[in-house]
Amino acid sequence: MRVEWALRLKGVEYEYIEEDIYNKTPLLLELNPIHKKVPVFIHGEKVILESFIILEYIDETWKQFPILPRDPYDRAMARFWAKVAEEKVMMNAWRSICTQFEEEKEGYLKHAMESLEKIEEVLVQGKSKFFGGEKIGYLDIALGWMSYTVPVWEEVGSMKIVDPILFPSTAVWMENFRNHPVIKDKLPPRDETVVYCQRISKEIGARMAAARKG
Amino acid sequence: MRVEWALRLKGVEYEYIEEDIYNKTPLLLELNPIHKKVPVFIHGEKVILESFIILEYIDETWKQFPILPRDPYDRAMARFWAKVAEEKVMMNAWRSICTQFEEEKEGYLKHAMESLEKIEEVLVQGKSKFFGGEKIGYLDIALGWMSYTVPVWEEVGSMKIVDPILFPSTAVWMENFRNHPVIKDKLPPRDETVVYCQRISKEIGARMAAARKG
Repeated sequence: MRVEWALRLKGVEYEYIEEDIYNKTPLLLELNPIHKKVPVFIHGEKVILESFIILEYIDETWKQFPILPRDPYDRAMARFWAKVAEEKVMMNAWRSICTQFEEEKEGYLKHAMESLEKIEEVLVQGKSKFFGGEKIGYLDIALGWMSYTVPVWEEVGSMKIVDPILFPSTAVWMENFRNHPVIKDKLPPRDETVVYCQRISKEIGARMAAARKG
Repeated sequence: MRVEWALRLKGVEYEYIEEDIYNKTPLLLELNPIHKKVPVFIHGEKVILESFIILEYIDETWKQFPILPRDPYDRAMARFWAKVAEEKVMMNAWRSICTQFEEEKEGYLKHAMESLEKIEEVLVQGKSKFFGGEKIGYLDIALGWMSYTVPVWEEVGSMKIVDPILFPSTAVWMENFRNHPVIKDKLPPRDETVVYCQRISKEIGARMAAARKG
């Protein structure tokens, strides 16, 4: 979705090819033998992998509507918070939903919350509609998954992740992002996402339990 | 070391402040409350974290001796292989050394090797002294740890990681990197590194075993 959002913001035409993670195409396995996962971005004869790396490539190739800030320090901060959101918030919230062990559930959620607090601070200090200011930028695109996935995860995991009382700015930002004209009609349908998350989280939970047994 | 190498290549003066990971300074904890680790790059009033993000910041701030390639696709590839080396080669080789379980040791090493094969291919295709061509670039700096850590790890873990028969180009590159005038006198002393790795790998191995028990 990040790749699509960036291309749409820049007005670059593209073709979207759906991949079923349960039945990967030979094309995917050929183009991404290391990770065997989407997104894979094909531009002419060039193949680029990993969503954050694709975003930088898109921003360097199509200069209109820049998504990374201009200033080197602001760029560094956008990249840093994107990584924190990915490795700390997303990873821990997801593990919290998947795990079959009650005591792990709380621990993972606590870790996710600690990093979410820092991201809330970034928004509070920025005082604008998006992380990128008045328009969507790199960090908004990187964090965009939260705007539609968190409500689904909260339902699937029977937990509150972004409590609007604890994270008021994040809650408003999620709303702003979801309602942006370029994003609005490109979000996956909620019901399908719930079913998908239920299925995947159960499978991963079982795998996590098996790994713990060694 | 990556940050120092980049600054030295660009001829930027800096002050190096040593941190003892067993006895972290209040300054480190204040500047990097999320990860509590080095490197922390202080530039005037700006603080930048995470070595790959610092490298991009340095390259965007001091334009002389560019370390990232100019072409967007080449830049994407440098970033991609740096990430693979970090998350696949380094992580798995390190786990292989640390684990107390023989069967895990082999599995981790196999994963590290699979990704190392791809990196060997990049060197074979590039046909030059460094990943960056005839001069050191981003990917060389990102992978530079291999040139002095791998021989130490091989000793500590009693294993072969970069066998010159299996990975001839990587072995030659390690030699080229180690002997580069800017790198040569900035490598940590071998004996100290061996002692340090022995200590750390034992501690992590014990923690890995404890986590497996749950």
